Amino acid sequence: MTVIAHIPAATGAELYHQVQEFYAHQMQLLDDGRVDEWALTFTPDGVFAANAHPEPSTGREAISAAARKAHAAMDEQGIRRRHWLGMVSVRESGPGSATARCYALVIEIPRGGQAVVRLSTVCEDRLVLSEAGWQVQYRQVNRDDLV
Amino acid sequence: MTVIAHIPAATGAELYHQVQEFYAHQMQLLDDGRVDEWALTFTPDGVFAANAHPEPSTGREAISAAARKAHAAMDEQGIRRRHWLGMVSVRESGPGSATARCYALVIEIPRGGQAVVRLSTVCEDRLVLSEAGWQVQYRQVNRDDLV
Amino acid sequence: MTVIAHIPAATGAELYHQVQEFYAHQMQLLDDGRVDEWALTFTPDGVFAANAHPEPSTGREAISAAARKAHAAMDEQGIRRRHWLGMVSVRESGPGSATARCYALVIEIPRGGQAVVRLSTVCEDRLVLSEAGWQVQYRQVNRDDLV
Repeated sequence: MTVIAHIPAATGAELYHQVQEFYAHQMQLLDDGRVDEWALTFTPDGVFAANAHPEPSTGREAISAAARKAHAAMDEQGIRRRHWLGMVSVRESGPGSATARCYALVIEIPRGGQAVVRLSTVCEDRLVLSEAGWQVQYRQVNRDDLV
Repeated sequence: MTVIAHIPAATGAELYHQVQEFYAHQMQLLDDGRVDEWALTFTPDGVFAANAHPEPSTGREAISAAARKAHAAMDEQGIRRRHWLGMVSVRESGPGSATARCYALVIEIPRGGQAVVRLSTVCEDRLVLSEAGWQVQYRQVNRDDLV
Repeated sequence: MTVIAHIPAATGAELYHQVQEFYAHQMQLLDDGRVDEWALTFTPDGVFAANAHPEPSTGREAISAAARKAHAAMDEQGIRRRHWLGMVSVRESGPGSATARCYALVIEIPRGGQAVVRLSTVCEDRLVLSEAGWQVQYRQVNRDDLV
C-alpha cells in the first residue's frame, strides 16, 4: 500500500466532499462493469468483506474477479445494477486516513422492465489517501436482510 | 435550549457538510434503536411534528418515547428500517441557526426478505447549533401519500 | 445565455456543495409543479435530452411545456413524483462551468397508496454559472431500462 504522507490531509467539508466524489466515481466504475478500474479503488492489499460472503476478497485480483463474476451473472439476465451510497458519515482517523459509514442500496433494473430496490446494506470503510487519490483499505458490507 | 452564540457559524460548503453529517449520524441512531441518543439530537424543547400524527411530540422525553414505541413495533415484526435523507437544501437563518428542507425515504427490510420503499416524505427542519453540535428545534415531516 | 465571467469560480468542496444545493432546489421546483421556475434553472438556450424522448426539448418554453404536461398527467392520476439525484460527480470544466454526472431515481407516490421506485436513470449535465446561479446548459437523461 502506497500512502503518501505529505499530501495535506483534508478535513471538514473538503474531506467529506472528497469521500462523496470518491464513492460516486467508484460505484459508477462498478456499475459500468469496469472491474479492473474498480479494483484500483482499493489498496493493493485491500479487503472486501461482506456478511453475505463466506470469506472476504483480499487484494485487487480477488476483488476484480468477484466483481467480474457478479457483473457477468447480471448481464446474462439483462439486469443492470446501480449502487447508491448515502447517509455518509466520515471521520478523519489520521493524516491521509479516514473511516466512513454509510447506507448502500442496490437498485436492479431489468432491460425493458421495472426498477426495484434489491438490497439494503450498511457499508463501513477504512480509507487511505494514496498518490491515486482515496482508496479503500478495508470494506465491510452488511446486508440488512441477513442480520 | 442552550445555543452558544460564540461558536462561529459555518456557511456555504462547511454548513452544508455539517448538516449532511448531522443527518447521517441522527438517522443511524434512530435506525439502530438508540432512541435516547436520537432524542439528544433535538433541543430540550424540540418538536417533532408529522402530518401522519394527530399531535406533535414536544421535548426529548416524548420524542424518545415515540421512537422507542415505533422501533419496538418494527422489531417484533422482524423489520429493520433505514431512513434516507436526500436532496438536502440548507439556508443559514442567523448565527448558529439554519433551516433545511429535504426528501426522506423509509426503506423497510424484513429479516430474510425483500427490501421495499415504505414511505416517501418531505422533511423541514429548524436547526440550531449547540455545545453538542447541531440539533433540531422543530421538525415537520409530511408523508407524500397523505397530502 | 448570460454567463458572468467575473464570478469567482468555486472549486472542490464549494463547487460540489453548490451543485448539490442546486440539484435539491431544482428538483423541488419540478416535483412541486413550479414548472416556470424549473425552466429558469436552464439557460435560455438550454437543452433537455432523454433516451426516452424522440427529440430534445430546446429552450425554456419547450422545457416548461414538457414539464407542465408531465406534471398534469401525474396529477390527474393522483400521483406525486419525487426526483432523487445522487452519486454526484462534478468536474470543473472552466471558470464558471462544470460537468456533472449522477444517478437519478423517480419515486412515485399515489395518493393514499404505496411509494414505488418508478425509474432509474443516469443524468449528465453541462452546467454554467449565471447571475441567477448555476444553470443547466445541456442535460442528457438516460433511463436504465431502455439501454
